[in-house]
Amino acid sequence: MKYKRLAVHTQTTRPLSLADAATAYADRGIAGISVWVEALESLGGISEHATVEAKRIVDDAGLKIPALVRGGFFCAGDATTRARRIDENRRLLETAAGLDAESLVLVVGALPGEPLDRQRGWVRDGIEAMIADAESCNVRIAIEPLHPMYAADKSCINRITDARAICELLDHRLLGVAIDVYHVWWDPDLSREIKLLGAAGRIFGLHVCDWRVPTRDLLTDRTLMGEGCIDVGRIRDEVEAAGFDGWHEVEIFSDDYWAIDQGEFLDQIVASYESL
Amino acid sequence: MKYKRLAVHTQTTRPLSLADAATAYADRGIAGISVWVEALESLGGISEHATVEAKRIVDDAGLKIPALVRGGFFCAGDATTRARRIDENRRLLETAAGLDAESLVLVVGALPGEPLDRQRGWVRDGIEAMIADAESCNVRIAIEPLHPMYAADKSCINRITDARAICELLDHRLLGVAIDVYHVWWDPDLSREIKLLGAAGRIFGLHVCDWRVPTRDLLTDRTLMGEGCIDVGRIRDEVEAAGFDGWHEVEIFSDDYWAIDQGEFLDQIVASYESL
Repeated sequence: MKYKRLAVHTQTTRPLSLADAATAYADRGIAGISVWVEALESLGGISEHATVEAKRIVDDAGLKIPALVRGGFFCAGDATTRARRIDENRRLLETAAGLDAESLVLVVGALPGEPLDRQRGWVRDGIEAMIADAESCNVRIAIEPLHPMYAADKSCINRITDARAICELLDHRLLGVAIDVYHVWWDPDLSREIKLLGAAGRIFGLHVCDWRVPTRDLLTDRTLMGEGCIDVGRIRDEVEAAGFDGWHEVEIFSDDYWAIDQGEFLDQIVASYESL
Repeated sequence: MKYKRLAVHTQTTRPLSLADAATAYADRGIAGISVWVEALESLGGISEHATVEAKRIVDDAGLKIPALVRGGFFCAGDATTRARRIDENRRLLETAAGLDAESLVLVVGALPGEPLDRQRGWVRDGIEAMIADAESCNVRIAIEPLHPMYAADKSCINRITDARAICELLDHRLLGVAIDVYHVWWDPDLSREIKLLGAAGRIFGLHVCDWRVPTRDLLTDRTLMGEGCIDVGRIRDEVEAAGFDGWHEVEIFSDDYWAIDQGEFLDQIVASYESL
């Protein structure tokens, strides 16, 4: 593959099936495919069957899987639901192992109106409960802090600082952080946090895209690197200077780009990546 | 006035003229009106004439003015434009003095694609250049950190932490921070920051509203206190425990509420305020 460190998230090309995505990525020399749970749905959802089938599709295309995306969602008002969510995460770790994915990415969840401190405690407890399973599966857990605009209902962990605090508290070689430029670019502590994470060997992923100006939708208005206001190249350089030598994963949710031909979109992704 | 510490921002009832807003607030026992620059436009914009006329309108209604809103917008690529912006802020300080407003609220601005560190330097320089004028006008400067979702194009100061750093660097009795729950509720450092600001006597304003779940628009989908996910009462209590005894300013931008009868909206604001 021409682009040995470039991966694309299946959700980036959401209109494509996993099989079509794998072929389209491979055709363009993109070496990696990060698989979303949503991409397994048409294969039967989280199950041994879907895992085997997805693995075969990805292997046939000659691709590697940086990450299974997304586990987490620990925040629920009652203990029974929280325990069930942890069980679901255990199945995702097994799925990631079956796919030979390096990491399981966690979006930790949020419950509107619940005190954030309490929610962050649930997240710590949930991740702690997964660690033995991560060991037996030999899959890394990558906590992805989400932008503060998602604090109400998607993630109560909104800065690298707070994801790092959980890593330091639980302190396990399989626990680290996925850095998505979209979520963290604004943070005045970003450079310091990248250094601290890197020094501890805890940068488990680098997700790239760009912040469109103006942003017209909170969820589906990301754009290609170079088309927004984030200095993606600088952040990538800082992450690599901190010791990260893993994948550059393109994760773009965009109504605009989902509406065009996905092969053309992938060509633009490759061009955008090359210009970084 | 029945509600001695309640104020409403004119932009909250944007469809009303300043005169209609003042009357409608006073009729409901709302003691304060924070005047937006936009509300002066129909009186001729920033000018001595508009200031005198607005002051007369507000005085006739028996209201006080916590703040003139908004100055700032320091971020521009060329030095000439930045100098002009500072001059505009000086005129706003004079306007605030003419209105007998306690503070001028600053939204500091942002320039897409420009390194945030450099922009934050422009903001420090701009505020520093205003301090002598704030003294001669005897008007307080209240830096309002905006939510990180506005970091691209509205404000490069996105946490109380960073507004406080500017206050400590420039260290003047007329320089402080306006805390808007909408912008800061998600911040894990919020309680600590409120204590630090309060101990230094630097809480110059408390803006209240709520974060709607889901939020459908980045700018105009705020809601009434109690209708979203922010524990506004807890934040208010923390701010007051830190020594703040000023206004509770209702600042809601909402396409939904702007579309209804503004008298009815004000009744709902008062009910929401009473339930806090």
